[in-house]
This record gives sequence, C-alpha cells and structure tokens, in this order.
Amino acid sequence: MLFAWCDRHNTMRMPEIIEKKRDGFELSDAEIDFVIEGLVADRIPDYQIAAWMMAICWRGMTERETASLTRAMMYSGDVVDLSDIPGVKVDKHSTGGVGDTTTLVIAPLVAACGGTVAKMSGRGLAHSGGTLDKLESVPGVCVEQSMDDFKRIVREIGVAVIGQSGNLDPADKRMYALRDVTATVQSIPLIASSIMSKKLAAGADAIVLDVKMGNGAFMQTLEDARKLAASMVSIGKHVGRKTVAVITDMNRPLGMAVGNGLEMKEAIDVLSGQVPFDDPLVRVCMTLGSYMLTLAGVAKDAQEAEAMLSNALVSGVGLKKLRDMLVAMGGDPAYVDAPERLVQTSRIIPVYPNRSGYVGCINAQDIGLASCMLGAGRESKSDSVDPAVGILMKKRYGDRVDTDEPYAVLYVNSERRLDEAMQLLDSAISICDEKPEELPMIYDVIE
Amino acid sequence: MLFAWCDRHNTMRMPEIIEKKRDGFELSDAEIDFVIEGLVADRIPDYQIAAWMMAICWRGMTERETASLTRAMMYSGDVVDLSDIPGVKVDKHSTGGVGDTTTLVIAPLVAACGGTVAKMSGRGLAHSGGTLDKLESVPGVCVEQSMDDFKRIVREIGVAVIGQSGNLDPADKRMYALRDVTATVQSIPLIASSIMSKKLAAGADAIVLDVKMGNGAFMQTLEDARKLAASMVSIGKHVGRKTVAVITDMNRPLGMAVGNGLEMKEAIDVLSGQVPFDDPLVRVCMTLGSYMLTLAGVAKDAQEAEAMLSNALVSGVGLKKLRDMLVAMGGDPAYVDAPERLVQTSRIIPVYPNRSGYVGCINAQDIGLASCMLGAGRESKSDSVDPAVGILMKKRYGDRVDTDEPYAVLYVNSERRLDEAMQLLDSAISICDEKPEELPMIYDVIE
Repeated sequence: MLFAWCDRHNTMRMPEIIEKKRDGFELSDAEIDFVIEGLVADRIPDYQIAAWMMAICWRGMTERETASLTRAMMYSGDVVDLSDIPGVKVDKHSTGGVGDTTTLVIAPLVAACGGTVAKMSGRGLAHSGGTLDKLESVPGVCVEQSMDDFKRIVREIGVAVIGQSGNLDPADKRMYALRDVTATVQSIPLIASSIMSKKLAAGADAIVLDVKMGNGAFMQTLEDARKLAASMVSIGKHVGRKTVAVITDMNRPLGMAVGNGLEMKEAIDVLSGQVPFDDPLVRVCMTLGSYMLTLAGVAKDAQEAEAMLSNALVSGVGLKKLRDMLVAMGGDPAYVDAPERLVQTSRIIPVYPNRSGYVGCINAQDIGLASCMLGAGRESKSDSVDPAVGILMKKRYGDRVDTDEPYAVLYVNSERRLDEAMQLLDSAISICDEKPEELPMIYDVIE
Repeated sequence: MLFAWCDRHNTMRMPEIIEKKRDGFELSDAEIDFVIEGLVADRIPDYQIAAWMMAICWRGMTERETASLTRAMMYSGDVVDLSDIPGVKVDKHSTGGVGDTTTLVIAPLVAACGGTVAKMSGRGLAHSGGTLDKLESVPGVCVEQSMDDFKRIVREIGVAVIGQSGNLDPADKRMYALRDVTATVQSIPLIASSIMSKKLAAGADAIVLDVKMGNGAFMQTLEDARKLAASMVSIGKHVGRKTVAVITDMNRPLGMAVGNGLEMKEAIDVLSGQVPFDDPLVRVCMTLGSYMLTLAGVAKDAQEAEAMLSNALVSGVGLKKLRDMLVAMGGDPAYVDAPERLVQTSRIIPVYPNRSGYVGCINAQDIGLASCMLGAGRESKSDSVDPAVGILMKKRYGDRVDTDEPYAVLYVNSERRLDEAMQLLDSAISICDEKPEELPMIYDVIE
C-alpha cells in the first residue's frame, strides 16, 4: 500500500491535473486525492489551487468527481465520530439567509420529538447571520465545547449546537479563503463540496439542507438553487448518508427579526406558541423538522412528523429543550424566561413608510446589511457583534402599510452608521399600490 | 494626474477584475494596467494572477484587450530606444521550432541588403533550440552586450543579435513562469501578448513573425496557427508597428541540422551558397527576409527583395555580415572560415533505417528531444549545453531510404542517454512504402 501511494504521487504532477480539468476531462479519485492531500500538506502552492479552481468554475465537475472531492475534503482533517451516541444523528444546514432562525427552533423541537441533533454551526458574515452569534446573545453561553462535553450534552438533552472543532476540514478552510479572493466562489461543485464535506466531517448520519433562493441568498435563481440542491443530495448518496434538500424563499427575510438577540427572542416566541402556524418561519421549520424526523426514522412519514412537531411546540417541550441546552452550555436561563432582556438597547427607533400601500419586494440582503451596520453583524472576521441590536420588521410581504404606522423598529446602541442603515432599510422595502401576488415559501424538495 | 491614478487604483479590486473576465466581459485599459502594474510591483499575489489567467484561457480576450495587455506588459520594464540608429529597425521572431536556424541566415542577409537588424533573442528550452545557444557555439562569442555596444555593432555592421537586457518586460517573466506551472500556457491572447510585448519592448519598428505549425511546434493545427498569427498582427496594428506573420511548416525539422554548432554550420553553409535554393530552410529564409526588406522599405516589393537576397547570398556578402557580427561579439573567425571545427565530437554515429522505403512523417518535437538528450538542449533553465553535439539528418521528408545508407548521423560526446536518444529518433521517423505527398512549406501569410 505504501509503495502504491508513493508511486501514485511520484507520477502525478499538478500542472497536468489542472490541464486535464481545463480541457474538460473528468479527474480520477486518485488525482483529486493528490490535490487535496497536497493542499493540506502545503505541497501545492496557492497559485496552482487557484488556477485549478478557476478551471472547475469553467468546466464543472461530474457527480462522481464532486463526491470524490467532498470525500477527500472531509477526510483532510478530523472526522467526528458520533457512533457512541445512540440513535440516528440528524443535522440541518442552511446555505445562509436573513432572519433565518430555523436552527434555534427546529434543533430543540426535533430533540423534543425524540430525534438526536449534534450540530456544529458557524458565525455570521456579511449580510447573513450565524447561529453561534445568536446562541451567544444569551449571556453565559459558551459555543466552544470540548468533544466530550458536546457528546455529553447531546446524550443528556438530545441536542447541542456548538462551534466547529479545531481541525475539521482544513482543506475547506484553505480553499474557501482562496476562493473568496480569486472569484471562484460561484461554482456549484465547489459550493456543494464545501458545505457537504464539513457536514460529513461533523459526523451526522442524515442531513436536511435548506437551500435559500432569492435576492437575500447566495443562489439568486431557482435554477441555480436546484442545481446546488441536486449536487449536495447526490454527494450524500455517493457517501451513503441520507440527504434531503428543501429549496426555500429568501426574497424577503424569513422571520420578522434580523439581529442576534432579536432572532433568539423570535425563536423563543415560536417555541412558546406565540407565533401562528401559518407564519413563514414556522412553516419552514415544520417542513425541515419533518424531514429530519423521517430521515432519522423517528416518524414514519411527513404527516406523523408534523403532528409530533406541533405537539412538541404547543406543549412547550421544545422550548424546554432549548432552555436545557442553553443552560448546559453555560447560559443564564433568566434570559430565556424573559427574552425581552435579550434586546435591551439605548434606543428603539420606529421607522415609518413614506407612503401608504402594500409591502412588495423586500431586498433581504439589504435588510441584513442594514442590521449589520447597526452592529449585529461583521464586516470582517475579527469584528465583534452587539447581541442586542438589529431590526424587527413589523410588516411583512403583502401587508397593508400606512404612513402613521411603523413598518420596522430599529434596536440601536450606536449612532455611527444609523443614517446609512435607515436609508438602506428604506430602499430595501418597496411599497406598491396593489396587494402583490403571494410568493411560495417552499419551491421544491430534492431527495 | 496623480490623483486620478490614486483614485483609479483605490476603487479597483483584483477579485472583481477576475470575476469580470470569468463572466466573459471585456476588461478596460485601466483594469488591465491595474493588473500588470500590481503584478510587477508585487501588490497582486500569484494566486490571483493564476486565476485571472485561467479565466483568460476560458473567455479569451478581444483584440483591443489583447493589444492593451501587450502595451501594459511592454511598458512594465525598460523599453529599448533604437531611434539613434538610422533606418527602419526590423525584427524577426519565430514561435520556436526544430532545426530552425533562419535567424542566423536572414539577419546577416537582410543587413547585407541594407536592412537594419537589432535583435534580442532567447535560449532554447525543451525540444526547441535557441539562437543564443547557436551563437555561443562559436568560441569567444559573448551574447551579453551592453546597450551601447549593441547599438555600436548595429551601426557599424547593420546587424546584431544579443540576449535580452536586464529589465525587459518583467511582467512577461512573472506571467510566463506562472503560466508554465498553472496550465495557462495554451491561450492565444496570452501567447500573443507574451511574444509581442517582448518584441515591442526591444524597440523594433517592423516585425516579421514566423509562426510554426505542426507536430514540432507550439501550434499543432493550421487553425490555431492562424489565430495566433492574426492576434499578433492585430497587436502590431493597434500599437502602430508594421507586422507580418508567415505560417510555416513544422511537421519535420526545418533544416537538416539539429544542435547548436550543427545549425551554425548549416547557416554558414547556406550563406556560402552550398545549399540549393529549393531547400526548405532556404525557401523559408527567402520568404521571411523578403517581408523584412519590404517592411523596412529597403525593397519596393517581394520580387525586388528576393532578388536582393539572392545576390547577397551568391556574392558572399551575407556570410561576411555574419562573420563580422560574430567577430564584433568576440567570436573567433577561424570557426566561421572552417565551420567543421564547430562540430568536433568524440563520436559520430551513423543511424540506419530498419527498412527501405520513403521518409514519411517526422515528429520534429521528438527529433528535438533526442538532440536534447545528446546534450544539445536544456531540460531545465540552469542546464548547460554542449555546442558540438546533435543530430544531422541525411534524408528529408519524401526521400528514398535504404537499410545500407544512414538517414541520420549523431554527433555525440556522452553515452549517458545515447540509447534513449536513438530509440526516440527511430520512432520519430516513419518509413512508408509509397512516396508521400509533398507538404507545403508556407501555409499562409497574415498581414
């Protein structure tokens, strides 16, 4: 075996692998392994990786190549072994949206129904929020847990959501940093392998993907969203993990809250039964949660799953799971019991529309950026966030608005970029004379 | 102006320029200048240049972009000013072939007709030879001349061929090194701008390009050769230099000699009138030289130019120019007067065909590589070459061969890779039963 490895690596050369992809040929598993191993071992310089990734943007990758790339990336660092936790471990991943607090709702809800959710999550960047920042809006919560503590919490409560451990998927880290500065982000196989390699390395048995589509999402068209969803589901199949992708709307913020404490409060409100079932956030949570329960084998079908989820919501068991998890991670339960304490800011500013009519298109990305300007998000990785600030929408797509009634409320602690944020918010929300046609919330399910 | 520059550079970002090209848009002059200035100043890292060049391989460049890139590269370092030398300075460039000693024939021949040739040349790499190595086969010749000495020789003799000066086209040096290792060599705009920026920076008023086509050339098809030729002629037009490209055959070595001293000797033989006018090497030299003389305005048309060249050849004035130039560069004239002294090796090995018939296709690249194995060429830039060794073909395409008559002779000083070289030579030459159809020597002229 050692000789085979040496031989393989001695006879392969990176320029020829780049050339093969440049000319539109399919790379072998051994060639893809060679690239990823060389990248992680720092044998292959950045400029060759950059040219290779641009060639992938150009020529694409077959399903087999994409799965092979994902597998190589997944095994480039630590792979979390959750086999000592009983049950099917089910994970959920969103491609990133605005006002998307689904994880904080469905992770505890699925656990309340008997599912097992051992999830690693990320931080927000640019306009989209991150679950870790939302968790940290509860004072005391520590998202950096040891693997032992992480597993202990999952075993005891059925759910834990923590930050990525040290050496998970180092290939992705290097490729992602490079993609960002070489305009090679927009490539379905590269996006799909980046997401799936991390999810697979995090040890889940089953994965439900929420692929956002629209002006606030990475995928701006349904066609692109379908391609990404299909690519990720195909990877799951190749690697032998149950995977379902749900394509949901991001032509508006999903929930009413955009900001870390505000979104945590909204999740608590949902789990307290204060938000009606026809609310878009609740509908998306029900759909995603339902696939999680059926993939995990906890429910036999969608109907049973939704009934279980509704019960867990109405009975308050879901809320209790969230509270237990936060407490287990060091959080102060007083904030869960009185969530208005999460959003105490020096000023609360109502924003009024400058004309009456109906709320039409909402540029979700700009809402996210406006919230970011208030201090809720990061412009660069090293920035800190203010957990309490953000935007609470008072009106949603299709609602009637009048000039004497605020359509949003800003939670503000600094005036620094306030004017800019208000202008962006204003331009992000269009007001129409006629009530606009309803937008679907869920476009497609790829399984 | 300074503010305009600052402003322009502050608002441009390399990832956006890569993205623009990736998406198939045309880059502005300012954007191209930004890349080349940033590259030479080391502000833009290799990985961004690599991704950008792969995007150019993918999307190509318009004629305007290619000319703009060439101009930016040309001005990235020193630009030679030949305006203090009287007359139209005419340059000639070959895209690289095997047994291609045209420069050594036509540079002195054109000078003998009253043209002015101030030429900077390169070294051989891989299978193709380089004029500098051929010049150095004459003991004493120094190809590194100061700019003053270079100009003095041109003024006195009408011709000098030297190595590139210190800081000529540094953008090309960096891009070329990177293209080689990122599989971005094969892109017409990148090849054309690389060649033309160097030629333009070297100060010529008029340029005749010899674009080789065939198995021993960089361009393997007539279609690609035409594209490259058209791109380079278009650059010349955009920059205001008279440019003509002649597409010539490289499906066989051009001359009979492959090796540095052997090719110098062949050039001397041609200039001594010992090679008939219908010889392929002589025919190509006549065509290229004729364009050089007409572009320079020395001859009014091709007919007059060819008559002048024939006279210079028959009268020996051309040979005298070569001899004068070599002496001016430090060379020992005894070797020009007795050129067999250039090819004194420890062994001279005749090679016989293993069957009789006619010489068919000759893989010129393999002939070049076989000569390289004997020590005539470099595998890497730092290798030294043996001036005396190489391959002298005794038969050419279409010639009758028999097993008792050598079709090639090897000039050998080392046995190290001799067997390998002989095998490669043998497999490079196909023997057919029927006399093969004649191959054109000149396929097209783009002006």
